[in-house]
Amino acid sequence: MRIRVINPNTTPSMTALIGAAARAVAGPGVTIEAVSPEHGPVSIEGHYDEAMSCLGLLEEVRKGEAQGVDAYVIACFGDPGLDAARELARGPVIGVAEAAMRSACYLATGFSVVTTLARTVVIAEHLVDKYGLRRHCRRVRASDVAVLELEDPASDAYRTILAECRRAIDEDASGAIVLGCAGMADLCERLSGELGVPVVDGVATATATAEALLRARLFTSKRGDYARPLPKAYRGWLAPFAPNKD
Amino acid sequence: MRIRVINPNTTPSMTALIGAAARAVAGPGVTIEAVSPEHGPVSIEGHYDEAMSCLGLLEEVRKGEAQGVDAYVIACFGDPGLDAARELARGPVIGVAEAAMRSACYLATGFSVVTTLARTVVIAEHLVDKYGLRRHCRRVRASDVAVLELEDPASDAYRTILAECRRAIDEDASGAIVLGCAGMADLCERLSGELGVPVVDGVATATATAEALLRARLFTSKRGDYARPLPKAYRGWLAPFAPNKD
Amino acid sequence: MRIRVINPNTTPSMTALIGAAARAVAGPGVTIEAVSPEHGPVSIEGHYDEAMSCLGLLEEVRKGEAQGVDAYVIACFGDPGLDAARELARGPVIGVAEAAMRSACYLATGFSVVTTLARTVVIAEHLVDKYGLRRHCRRVRASDVAVLELEDPASDAYRTILAECRRAIDEDASGAIVLGCAGMADLCERLSGELGVPVVDGVATATATAEALLRARLFTSKRGDYARPLPKAYRGWLAPFAPNKD
Amino acid sequence: MRIRVINPNTTPSMTALIGAAARAVAGPGVTIEAVSPEHGPVSIEGHYDEAMSCLGLLEEVRKGEAQGVDAYVIACFGDPGLDAARELARGPVIGVAEAAMRSACYLATGFSVVTTLARTVVIAEHLVDKYGLRRHCRRVRASDVAVLELEDPASDAYRTILAECRRAIDEDASGAIVLGCAGMADLCERLSGELGVPVVDGVATATATAEALLRARLFTSKRGDYARPLPKAYRGWLAPFAPNKD
Amino acid sequence: MRIRVINPNTTPSMTALIGAAARAVAGPGVTIEAVSPEHGPVSIEGHYDEAMSCLGLLEEVRKGEAQGVDAYVIACFGDPGLDAARELARGPVIGVAEAAMRSACYLATGFSVVTTLARTVVIAEHLVDKYGLRRHCRRVRASDVAVLELEDPASDAYRTILAECRRAIDEDASGAIVLGCAGMADLCERLSGELGVPVVDGVATATATAEALLRARLFTSKRGDYARPLPKAYRGWLAPFAPNKD
Amino acid sequence: MRIRVINPNTTPSMTALIGAAARAVAGPGVTIEAVSPEHGPVSIEGHYDEAMSCLGLLEEVRKGEAQGVDAYVIACFGDPGLDAARELARGPVIGVAEAAMRSACYLATGFSVVTTLARTVVIAEHLVDKYGLRRHCRRVRASDVAVLELEDPASDAYRTILAECRRAIDEDASGAIVLGCAGMADLCERLSGELGVPVVDGVATATATAEALLRARLFTSKRGDYARPLPKAYRGWLAPFAPNKD
Repeated sequence: MRIRVINPNTTPSMTALIGAAARAVAGPGVTIEAVSPEHGPVSIEGHYDEAMSCLGLLEEVRKGEAQGVDAYVIACFGDPGLDAARELARGPVIGVAEAAMRSACYLATGFSVVTTLARTVVIAEHLVDKYGLRRHCRRVRASDVAVLELEDPASDAYRTILAECRRAIDEDASGAIVLGCAGMADLCERLSGELGVPVVDGVATATATAEALLRARLFTSKRGDYARPLPKAYRGWLAPFAPNKD
Repeated sequence: MRIRVINPNTTPSMTALIGAAARAVAGPGVTIEAVSPEHGPVSIEGHYDEAMSCLGLLEEVRKGEAQGVDAYVIACFGDPGLDAARELARGPVIGVAEAAMRSACYLATGFSVVTTLARTVVIAEHLVDKYGLRRHCRRVRASDVAVLELEDPASDAYRTILAECRRAIDEDASGAIVLGCAGMADLCERLSGELGVPVVDGVATATATAEALLRARLFTSKRGDYARPLPKAYRGWLAPFAPNKD
Repeated sequence: MRIRVINPNTTPSMTALIGAAARAVAGPGVTIEAVSPEHGPVSIEGHYDEAMSCLGLLEEVRKGEAQGVDAYVIACFGDPGLDAARELARGPVIGVAEAAMRSACYLATGFSVVTTLARTVVIAEHLVDKYGLRRHCRRVRASDVAVLELEDPASDAYRTILAECRRAIDEDASGAIVLGCAGMADLCERLSGELGVPVVDGVATATATAEALLRARLFTSKRGDYARPLPKAYRGWLAPFAPNKD
Repeated sequence: MRIRVINPNTTPSMTALIGAAARAVAGPGVTIEAVSPEHGPVSIEGHYDEAMSCLGLLEEVRKGEAQGVDAYVIACFGDPGLDAARELARGPVIGVAEAAMRSACYLATGFSVVTTLARTVVIAEHLVDKYGLRRHCRRVRASDVAVLELEDPASDAYRTILAECRRAIDEDASGAIVLGCAGMADLCERLSGELGVPVVDGVATATATAEALLRARLFTSKRGDYARPLPKAYRGWLAPFAPNKD
Repeated sequence: MRIRVINPNTTPSMTALIGAAARAVAGPGVTIEAVSPEHGPVSIEGHYDEAMSCLGLLEEVRKGEAQGVDAYVIACFGDPGLDAARELARGPVIGVAEAAMRSACYLATGFSVVTTLARTVVIAEHLVDKYGLRRHCRRVRASDVAVLELEDPASDAYRTILAECRRAIDEDASGAIVLGCAGMADLCERLSGELGVPVVDGVATATATAEALLRARLFTSKRGDYARPLPKAYRGWLAPFAPNKD
Repeated sequence: MRIRVINPNTTPSMTALIGAAARAVAGPGVTIEAVSPEHGPVSIEGHYDEAMSCLGLLEEVRKGEAQGVDAYVIACFGDPGLDAARELARGPVIGVAEAAMRSACYLATGFSVVTTLARTVVIAEHLVDKYGLRRHCRRVRASDVAVLELEDPASDAYRTILAECRRAIDEDASGAIVLGCAGMADLCERLSGELGVPVVDGVATATATAEALLRARLFTSKRGDYARPLPKAYRGWLAPFAPNKD
C-alpha cells in the first residue's frame, strides 16, 4: 500500500516531522510518501493561506493518481482542499482534523481541541460543525503558539501547550485532547504521558485510518459530490490544471 | 459606493449577465463593477472547480482593496473563497448563496433551492448547514441543467427549471424559491410571475445586501477569523500572492 | 418607496429616535414613516408586554396596506407580532432582531447580543433558535439597563453597555456586537468607534434590508403560513379587527 | 384543585366539548372550569388569529389569579399566549400542543401530528422546534378540515382525519398520533380504537399534566422570563391591562 | 390503578424512601408498589452498574405484566432499561430522568440538573440529548456526593447540594432545578423552600406522569421499536428470560 | 496485538462468519479472537434482546482484560453495552455501528443504512443521533430480512438487500451504503461490486479501526464516564459481577 502524506505548507522540516509521525504508525507493507508542494505558503494560519495552498496540494493528488498512490493524508488541521481532493482520488483521502476528531470519539465522550493561534479557533469550530461533532467536542482552545514556533527548540511551545491541555481537562471536563496542528505530531506521546489521557494527533490517526479503510477495501464514492471533476477548459495560466476526460 | 461583483468563472457572457442583474437593483450613487478573473475555470460545478477558482477571485479582491472598492459580491452559488476574501477586505463581502438564502428567510418560513446539476446539491446542502438554515431550507433540488446550457437560447433550460420549481412548491410545501446558480439571474422575474411566489436570485440580493450594509456603515470584523492574513513568505510561483504587512 | 417603521411601544420620544436611525440609512427616494400605536405599553420588556403590543402594531400594518405602504419594520428587539404582520402585508416585514442578527452573520463568524434587562435574555435566545443562529450567536448578555433609562441623559447607560460589549468581545470571542434593543439605535456609531468591531443596530439594518428586498422586487409569500388571514367573525369589541375578504 | 381550561376562541360549543374532555381525565377533587373569552376570533387558524386571541385569553388568566385558580390549560394547538400567561400565573400553565407532544414522547419513539388546514402545518412545526422535538415528531400533516367543520355532524371530518392518521402510521413509521386541534378532543378514543396506536389529545393530556404538576407541588418559576410582568403604564384603551404591582 | 415504582438498585432503605415520595403525589385510588430486584448493584453510578441492573429491573416488569400492573416508574436517574421495559409493558413506563426534565420544561425556560458524582454528568448529558432537551437544560452539574451518602444523616449532603443549586441559579441563569438522583427525592421540598424556584424530583414527577397518562387512557405503542420482543431462544442460564409468544 | 471480536448473540455460525470478516482485514501481527457468550439470545433484534445480551458480552470483556487483550469489537449493529464495556477496558472498544458509520463519512458526504427488520430502524436512528451523524446519514432503511435468515442459503436475503441498497442510492441520493447487521459481513464485497459504491461493513471497519487506534497507541480515557466502575457490592446471583478494586 502506498499512502501519500501531503504537508500543504512548504516548510520541509515540517514535512519531515509529519513523515516520521506517519511512518511510526504505518503497518508492515505500507509505504509512506511524505511530500509538500513546491509552491505555496510556509505555514497555514487562516482562510487565505488555506485557499492559496489548495493549488499545490491538489497537484500532489493529481500526480499521485497517475503514479498509483492508494490513499492520501492531508496534513494540516484545517483540512484544506479535502473535498476537492476527494473528487480527484479513487482511494480514500483523509484530513488530519477529521481523523483526529472522529478517532477521539471512540476514546472519550468529550474531547477538547488545543490549537495554535486564536484566529484558528473559529476555523476548527467550522470543522467541528461540518463533521457533526458539536456534541463531542466540548471546546476548541488556542495556545497562542504560532505554527513555526513549534519547531523552535528555544521556544516555550511544549509547556504552553501542556498548560492549555490541563485547563481543557479541568475546565471542559474533557476526557481526551485533540492536537489542533499537524506540526504538534511529535509532542503527542510526551503530552499523553504527562496528562494521563489520550492525546490524539491527526497525522497518526489519519495515516492509520487511511490504512484501515484500504484494508477494508473501501474507496471514495464517485456517486454524489465526490464524482470526478467534469472535463472542461480552464483559462489563462490555470489551463494546465483543467480536469480532463479520464 | 463602489461594489465589485466578481464572477469567479472566466466566461465573459456570464459576467455581463451578472453585471446587468446587479445594476438592476443598485440604488442611485452605487457603481457596479462586474469583473471576472483572467485565469480559471469556464464554469464552476464541483469542489475542484471551486478550489481552483479561488486564486483568480481573491486577486480581484486584493486589487479592489488597492483601488478603494467598498464592498464585494462573489457571484457563484457555492460561495467559493468567501471566508478568505473576508480576510482581505475591509468592507462587506457577500456570497450569492448566503444572501439569497438569508433573504428568503424574511419572505417565507420555508424555501427550496433549485440548482443545476445533481452533484451540486450536496455542495448547496453544506452551505445550508454552514449558514444555520437547515430548518428554513426544506430541500435542495437539481434541475439537471448544466451551467453553460443556461446561456443557450435553444436549450429547454427555462422550462426545465420552471417545472422543478413547481415540484418544490407542491412537494416541499415551500413558500419561496432560491435560484441555485448565479447564471439564472435573468430568469428570476419571469419565474416569479409564473409561479406567484418570491423567486430569489443571489446576484440581486447579494448586491442589495452589500449596499444595505454599507448604508448602515458596517464592515468586516477584524477580530477573529476574518482578521487580515498574517504576513509571511509564499514559496515558488505563489510568492507574489503572499500577504504583506499593511 | 414607503417604508413604515413601527415602534410597538407608545413612547413618542423613542419613536422619534427610531425614525431618525431609519432615515440615516435610507437611500434616495425612500420615505420613512416612523409611527407608534396610540394604545399599548410604554415599553416592552417581557412576553406579556409583547403580547399586548400586537393589537396596536398590527393595526398600523392594516392601515399601511390600505395606504400603499411598501414595506414595514417592527422596531422592538423581540420581533413581536412579526408572523402575524407578514400575514397582513404584501411587501416585506422585517423585525429588528432578525435583521440585526442575520446582518451580523455577514460580518463576523460569531457575534454577541447585548440587551437590556436579564429577563429579556431568554426572549432573545428564543429568537436566536427560531432564526437558526445558535451557531453564530455566541452569547446573549444583559446590561441591566431598563429600556426607558436609555433615554435618560443622566443615566450611566452608555458606559454600562460599553463595558458589557467589551466583556462580550473578550470572553465570548465574538467579532461583532448586536444591540438588543431598538432604543439603543443612537449608541451604535459611538460604540463601534470605541470598540473597533462592527456594532449592529436593528433599526438601521432592518430598514436597509427592507429597502434591499424592495430593490430586488421581493415580497412576502402568500403560500404557507404567511397567507392572508382567513375571513371570519371576531366577537365582542375585537369585531372590528376581524379579517375581511380582500 | 381548580384547573381553568381556556378555549381561546369564542365558539361556546367548542368550549363545551373541551370542558367535557378535560373533565373526563380529571381526578377526584379536581374542579375543571372551562371558559372562553367574550372577545375574539370564532376560530384560530393562523398567526393573526393567534395574536388577536391573546388579549381575551390573558384576561382569563388575570381573573383566575384573583379568584385562586391553581393551574391553567390553553386549549388551542398553537399554544397562543403561553409564555405571557406564565408570566401572570403562579401555578402551572399548560398548552395543549406542548402537553400532547411531550406526552407522546413517553409512548412511542416517533409520532406524527395530524392537524386541520395546511397553513397550520408550519405553525405546528415552529412549536416542534421550540419544544426541542424535531427528532421525536416525524411529520406534521394537514387533513384539510377546517376547525369549525369538526363540529358539523354532516361533514366527513372523522373519516378524513382517520385516513390521514393511517397515512402517518404507514408512511412516517410513527408509533403514535398527536391530534393537532383542541376541537378534535372527542375523536380521540374512537381513532385510537380503529388505529391500534396511542392517539394523543392535547386537552386530556394538558389537563392531566396540570394535575400531575400540582400533585408534585410544582409551580411556574419566577426566575427568568416567566417573572411577573414589570409594573408600568399602558396607553389608550389598553390602559386597564397594564401590569400592576402585586 | 396500580403503579409499580422500581428502584433498580438493591438498597432497601432507598426503595422505602422512593416509595414514600411516590405515595406523596399519587391521587386517590392509585396503589403504589415500590419494589427492587433481589439481584444487582447496591447503587448505580456508571454505565456498567446500569447495564447490570437491567436484568433484575426487567424481571420486575415481566412479573408486573403477569400481575396486572397498569404502569411503571424506573427510579434511577440514568433511566436504565427504559426502552427494553417499554417493549415488555402494555401500559406506560416512565423514567425519572425523562419525567423530571420534561416536567421542568413546563415551569421555566431553562433548568439545570444537579446530580451526584462527576462521572454521572456525562450520562445525564446523554439523556438530555436523547430527549431533545439540549436547549432547555442549561447545564448538568455534579455535587460530588455519592449515592449512598445521601442516606447518611451525618453527611453534609444536603448543604453541598443546596450550594450547587445556588450556583446553578446564579451562573447558569436557570429558573428551575432538576434533582439528578432518585435518592434525593426527600430533599425536594426543603430545597425548593430555600431556593424559591421549582425543584423537580423525578420520582414524584414520574409517578404523577404515569397517573396522568393512565387517566388519559394512553398506553405504550406496539408499532415501532416498543413492539413486544420477538419470541426466540435464549441460551444458557439466561434461557428463562427468553421472550415467549403472548 | 490481540483484538477480541465479540458476537453478543449465541449463534456459533454467526460468530464464525464474523471472525472470518475480521481476519480478512487484520494486518500482519494481529490476532483475532472471535468469541460469543455462552448465555444469551440467539439473535438481537430489539431493546430487550440488547439489554439481556450485555451480561454475557461484558463478561467477555472482563475475561479479556485479565488475559491481556488489547482491543475489542462489539459485533452487533445496535452497539449494545458499548459504554459499559469501555468502563471495563483499558484499550479501545469499538462498536460495529459506530465504526461503519464514522468510516462511511470519509468516503461519501451522505450514506444510507440498510438494516434487517423495520423495528431495528428506530434503534439505528438512535445511534445516528448519539454519534452526531444526523447530517451524514440520509436514511435508515429496513430490508425486512430477519437476522437468522441471513444464514439461510435458500432465502432471498441477498437479492432483497441488494434491491433496498439500489433504492437507497436512487431515492436518498446516498453515495455509500452501511450494512446494518453484523451478520451481513460476507455480503459486503459482492454488493459493492454490483452497486459501484462503497458498501461499508461494521465488522471489517471496526476491526480495522481498533487496529488503527492501537497503532496510534491510543486507549480508552479513564477521565469521565469511561472511568473504571466504582468498587461496590452486587447482591444475589449478580454478586460475582461486582466491580472490584483494581
